Amino acid sequence: MAEQEDKAGDQQKFVLKCPKGTRDFDPKQMAIREGVFKTITDCFKRHGAETIDTPVFELKETLMGKYGEDSKLIYDLADQGGELLSLRYDLTVPFARYLAMKKITNIKRYHIAKVYRRDNPAMTKGRYREFYQCDFDTAGAYDVMITDAEVVKIVAEILSDLELGDFVIKVNHRKFLDGMMACCGVPTEKFRTICSAIDKLDKTPWEDVRAEMVDTKGLDGAVADKIGTFVKLTGRGELIDKLLKDDSISKNEEAVQALEEMRVFFKYCETMDITNRVSFDLSLARGLDYYTGLIYEGTLTDTDGKGVGSVAGGGRYDDLVGMFDPSGKKVPCVGVSIGIERIFSIIEARKFASEEKIRTTETAVLVASAQKDLLDERMRLCSELWGAKINAEMSYKKDPKLLTQIQYAEETGIPCVAIIGEDEMKKGIIKLRNTKTRDEVEIKRTDFIDEVKKRCQSQA
Amino acid sequence: MAEQEDKAGDQQKFVLKCPKGTRDFDPKQMAIREGVFKTITDCFKRHGAETIDTPVFELKETLMGKYGEDSKLIYDLADQGGELLSLRYDLTVPFARYLAMKKITNIKRYHIAKVYRRDNPAMTKGRYREFYQCDFDTAGAYDVMITDAEVVKIVAEILSDLELGDFVIKVNHRKFLDGMMACCGVPTEKFRTICSAIDKLDKTPWEDVRAEMVDTKGLDGAVADKIGTFVKLTGRGELIDKLLKDDSISKNEEAVQALEEMRVFFKYCETMDITNRVSFDLSLARGLDYYTGLIYEGTLTDTDGKGVGSVAGGGRYDDLVGMFDPSGKKVPCVGVSIGIERIFSIIEARKFASEEKIRTTETAVLVASAQKDLLDERMRLCSELWGAKINAEMSYKKDPKLLTQIQYAEETGIPCVAIIGEDEMKKGIIKLRNTKTRDEVEIKRTDFIDEVKKRCQSQA
Repeated sequence: MAEQEDKAGDQQKFVLKCPKGTRDFDPKQMAIREGVFKTITDCFKRHGAETIDTPVFELKETLMGKYGEDSKLIYDLADQGGELLSLRYDLTVPFARYLAMKKITNIKRYHIAKVYRRDNPAMTKGRYREFYQCDFDTAGAYDVMITDAEVVKIVAEILSDLELGDFVIKVNHRKFLDGMMACCGVPTEKFRTICSAIDKLDKTPWEDVRAEMVDTKGLDGAVADKIGTFVKLTGRGELIDKLLKDDSISKNEEAVQALEEMRVFFKYCETMDITNRVSFDLSLARGLDYYTGLIYEGTLTDTDGKGVGSVAGGGRYDDLVGMFDPSGKKVPCVGVSIGIERIFSIIEARKFASEEKIRTTETAVLVASAQKDLLDERMRLCSELWGAKINAEMSYKKDPKLLTQIQYAEETGIPCVAIIGEDEMKKGIIKLRNTKTRDEVEIKRTDFIDEVKKRCQSQA
Repeated sequence: MAEQEDKAGDQQKFVLKCPKGTRDFDPKQMAIREGVFKTITDCFKRHGAETIDTPVFELKETLMGKYGEDSKLIYDLADQGGELLSLRYDLTVPFARYLAMKKITNIKRYHIAKVYRRDNPAMTKGRYREFYQCDFDTAGAYDVMITDAEVVKIVAEILSDLELGDFVIKVNHRKFLDGMMACCGVPTEKFRTICSAIDKLDKTPWEDVRAEMVDTKGLDGAVADKIGTFVKLTGRGELIDKLLKDDSISKNEEAVQALEEMRVFFKYCETMDITNRVSFDLSLARGLDYYTGLIYEGTLTDTDGKGVGSVAGGGRYDDLVGMFDPSGKKVPCVGVSIGIERIFSIIEARKFASEEKIRTTETAVLVASAQKDLLDERMRLCSELWGAKINAEMSYKKDPKLLTQIQYAEETGIPCVAIIGEDEMKKGIIKLRNTKTRDEVEIKRTDFIDEVKKRCQSQA
């Protein structure tokens, strides 16, 4: 198909589309998107975060060896001479590169930006090849679980603030997972690959995951069954107690240490009043290689049966910065990424289903004319309003019809219409029409700007 | 060098850097950048613009044949199967593609996003390979020069609002340029290439530009000299009169029509009070192929001799959307792109030179403790403050020193410090310290949140 077009060399046969897995945002979508970003940014700022930005592409080397099996999804740039580059796959690795490069050991930052994955797009489910991530991370060596608990608190605040319905934040611990696998008899070299099998349990039934472990990954059936008894478990403090009493777990130092940390974590959840939002879930594994401690995933539980699944995920990654540092100096980090596209899909569907009108501009006044030959007057008044920092628009036609102008204000939700007319000009006044009530008042030309400030700007 | 590292396969030899021509933004730079964006966005909204977003890459075909000689600067993505993609070179071509694809014939939109050019970076001068553009464009068939004049008004407002010192907006007209070249005897097939030679006059002396025309581009010397007499000219209305009286110009229909349009443009400038900011400059050519009418460039004239040059540029492009439409349907457009990186360099240099402290967070309260073992109390109070939507931070150490906590508030500019102490807890109070005045007041624990709302939030 593409080849055929090239041969034809005919511009008319050009396919008019966005690249696969990407999309444009129209003004209505942007209005919704910016509202969602504001809620998220407000929360990050509420917790004292700064923001940074990094380039959309990194040296190819920077991304290599960080994403395990998912590395195949990285977009490379063409070799046009010079450095070999790849589009960023997430915001975490660029953040770690930034910390190592600038030798920063303490920072709390957020970063909202697009990332790129050559994944199989499922755009109806909000899965794209270009999508936004909203990341919050704390770097620094602090006392155990304090920053981790704050990150989970942030997830709870954001999911509440966005009014997405019920949600649960599943938590687990990489070191507990490792200990648990050791207890079940998984060979050490199979930890990562069995971990990514467990990770599929949110979408795949246990039987299929077990088959993957045994048939594809060569795990002993009895070992898989033992894993099966653990990954069913969910709970809170009482689950920690139960696991600590388990014969094999209680003998595994790594697992016990992880459970003690989980106990501290749940204590902080209690202090910050989010215990009811958090669930210790042994089936949570998260595929990425770089996690080293607490991991979590925010999942919506009430979405009209649509099952959007995970909308936030993250964890502790204490070794990633060290991978970039020439001396291997570690900077402990913990963070979360909010999966904004799914959230955006839900809110968009809800807004479009409701009768609620979405304004895409913030115009306060439409400057209109009642007769012909008043373009210059309209333009002068607009210019004065702009000078007074009032949002104002006018028709770009020389002689627009008054009705057309008023209809435009009604359709786009502009609260006030300034109507310039010949008679009014002679009397030294301008009519101001309230779009909603349709009331009109006469205002002295000389007082007009001040009056508009009072009457219209607050409504825009 | 890179090859050597690959062979060594040694992670330690990895080069820790951003790709050539790109950079990270640290929190201070981000604070400045967001301030600049706000000023620009506010102006775009003041003029009633909506916003859209498009993907960072487009089908390679979409960008082909739009940028003339500059096409070699486009970044291509590697062919990893599927569509051939390129990073966007500007926001104008994606906008035109968007209009054609969605069959939109009327829109006023802004778009602030990064674009990519494999140019020779001059980062000290604010020239990068990845940089932001802030674009405002109006699409639609309207009466002559109305939208064009508004775009120039917008440039004038933004450059004033940013307080960058004196500036001038040079304007010219593509059709006048073509007519002028015809009058001088330039062969039609050489119009574009001679145009891009003229375009260099802002940085290159006439003698060199003349040499390029004659020696490289094969123009007759006498023809070049005739061009030389024109491109020196600058002025306003009186220059239009003078040119209309010129023997050869007055016989060229295209040139005369363009000059009549320029007259209308200058009338609107007068109405909108920007005449003194605008200069008809016959040396302004602008290289891009797609311009068809008025073109303009905003240039700073007062920058302590640093010569940052052009900070905004744009023009009318009536044929670009038609290039994407299967039936060739045209949508007239006019727009401008604000060159934010140069502006950002100037403001950054100015801020860093001044003693002004740049806050990178918006934290209102630091929750501190006077003794040990108060982590839980601090965490609980923070949680309450967050619940009341108050920006609050605390130290992530279990037992931080009071002095360290107070110093942190002073250094980062947090206006209030809530001090939790054992004695105070017994009395049911919390001390609130004003960071600036160092005054401390005792506030009842039960009233604390309300009091903080009153006292601290406005200062953050």
